[in-house]
Amino acid sequence: MAEQDIKKILDGDDRTLATIISLIERDSPQVPGIMKSIAAHTGKAYKIGITGPPGVGKSTLIDSLTSLIRKQGSSVAILAVDPTSPFKGGAMLGDRVRMQRHYTDEGVFIRSMATRGVKGGLTGAINEIIDLMDAAGKRYILLETVGVGQSELDIAGYVDTVVVVLVPDMGDSIQAMKAGIMEIADIFVVNKSDLAGVDRLVNNLNVTLGLNEGRGEWQIPVLKCRADQNDGVEDLLDKILQHKDLLEKGGRLEERRGRQRLQQFEQMLEHKILVEIKSKILDSGKVNELGNKIKRGEISPYTALNRIMKTGIPSFFSGKTHVSTDNKE
Amino acid sequence: MAEQDIKKILDGDDRTLATIISLIERDSPQVPGIMKSIAAHTGKAYKIGITGPPGVGKSTLIDSLTSLIRKQGSSVAILAVDPTSPFKGGAMLGDRVRMQRHYTDEGVFIRSMATRGVKGGLTGAINEIIDLMDAAGKRYILLETVGVGQSELDIAGYVDTVVVVLVPDMGDSIQAMKAGIMEIADIFVVNKSDLAGVDRLVNNLNVTLGLNEGRGEWQIPVLKCRADQNDGVEDLLDKILQHKDLLEKGGRLEERRGRQRLQQFEQMLEHKILVEIKSKILDSGKVNELGNKIKRGEISPYTALNRIMKTGIPSFFSGKTHVSTDNKE
Repeated sequence: MAEQDIKKILDGDDRTLATIISLIERDSPQVPGIMKSIAAHTGKAYKIGITGPPGVGKSTLIDSLTSLIRKQGSSVAILAVDPTSPFKGGAMLGDRVRMQRHYTDEGVFIRSMATRGVKGGLTGAINEIIDLMDAAGKRYILLETVGVGQSELDIAGYVDTVVVVLVPDMGDSIQAMKAGIMEIADIFVVNKSDLAGVDRLVNNLNVTLGLNEGRGEWQIPVLKCRADQNDGVEDLLDKILQHKDLLEKGGRLEERRGRQRLQQFEQMLEHKILVEIKSKILDSGKVNELGNKIKRGEISPYTALNRIMKTGIPSFFSGKTHVSTDNKE
Repeated sequence: MAEQDIKKILDGDDRTLATIISLIERDSPQVPGIMKSIAAHTGKAYKIGITGPPGVGKSTLIDSLTSLIRKQGSSVAILAVDPTSPFKGGAMLGDRVRMQRHYTDEGVFIRSMATRGVKGGLTGAINEIIDLMDAAGKRYILLETVGVGQSELDIAGYVDTVVVVLVPDMGDSIQAMKAGIMEIADIFVVNKSDLAGVDRLVNNLNVTLGLNEGRGEWQIPVLKCRADQNDGVEDLLDKILQHKDLLEKGGRLEERRGRQRLQQFEQMLEHKILVEIKSKILDSGKVNELGNKIKRGEISPYTALNRIMKTGIPSFFSGKTHVSTDNKE
């Protein structure tokens, strides 16, 4: 990657931005150098996370929110992280189609990413892509994740404001997700407000929020909206901007981002170490011998692990100590 | 854990089984010893995974399947892995209530587990709990996971037969999950067969399956069922048993389980190494110094990581090499 390309990104060239995102997804060796070069140019974008169960209308909401932000003249980048993957690569076609009215708008950059297709570790890739979008001068970055399981809880590590989208009547299992989500939401949106059960859900959320300690001065709001009619989306943007103002006062935003940078570093380091383990240990002849015995059932995974733990991981890592693959104790 | 307790598990004492599962969830230091002791007594249970999006009726299906297996006289253990977590510990109350008719049946052991509550790594815990249930003499082990994101793809690593449950009309985002799921399903079940769109979904699945190479001799079936009426569940059990027969022929089952044991070992080893990294590296004074600079924005996570990678992870791990925290290159 020439210095010229770095300059292109900083000048906001979307084509170069897209190319480098593809390098990140492929875990190209050029990436670390690029990220180092652009690091000093990050921190200017405001980052908004939109999460919630499948089918609640996150893409429609983002579409509507994007129109509003564009009316105010700011640039927008959207990163949709898709926990599913088609058979052979690709991304969320449906969402792309839904958002196509923004495709011709040069002020909107859209990218979706299948989580299974990312070679160099998902957390690192998301952080890197967001930082790139930031350095490319995008003023608002919208990160969409599907909110189920651990992944939606991770969203708080990437963004400044977390918006959790729910709809009424999605069954116990889905509503149960509120639990983990409660702790990361800065704003709740109950979408599809024309459906029955909206007020009950809003009330339930408010009651549950009331039971918990608030998050400092911020009262977590529960908004109703109908994104397909652009209904309630202005209120949402207002609340996001209020949250932004509050964070910016007294250095709270910088503190939050500092914690995120540290977490980002730790996760990237973990990932690199795992890659190293995989190539140096798990693929080494010594572990292959152990691995074959485990496969054949001659030694249990538990016994093998016990033995390595007794040796100590650092010595096992450095390869200086022999771990017996004998099944006798 | 006394030898007596190991004997109790092997004798099928459910209370001891429950106690040890709690030890696993808390990552007690007693666990490795217990697992080593019971390892030789595993491999007799047949393990069935049930996965699918939230709200498709997995618990109802498992409930119905359990009744059928019980009628044939075999014991059943159910492990429901819940990707969500309530505010302070606990498990899926709704599902427990739904399955309560089996609570008084001594031949059925039910456990649910919140994924965020597990201290010692989820993959290891699931494997350990399944192995314990197996050693305790349960003939069928049913593993329920919520099928979104990576977690549902992992289910194939734990079980012998993977059943994927879908329902018609759950919106694009949910149906998109089919993609990743296609590769791990041994059997598809379209539940709530009274809903509109069932035949379209069945056809779509069959067409998509037809486009892919089959999995050896096994034709992946697409079944319709209405679990709340016990309708179609017998066919499902028949198909599961056909798949079991096929796997058992010519040693395919043992081969699959061998690969799973190896994967299990690698994942447990990875987890242990990560724990070691966290305690020895990330919490060490040296990284704290680096970490504080990253937090304060004096050095970017990318520069810090680059520097460690240049030093080489093994020397960084052993603590013999100094990594500069200076922001100059």
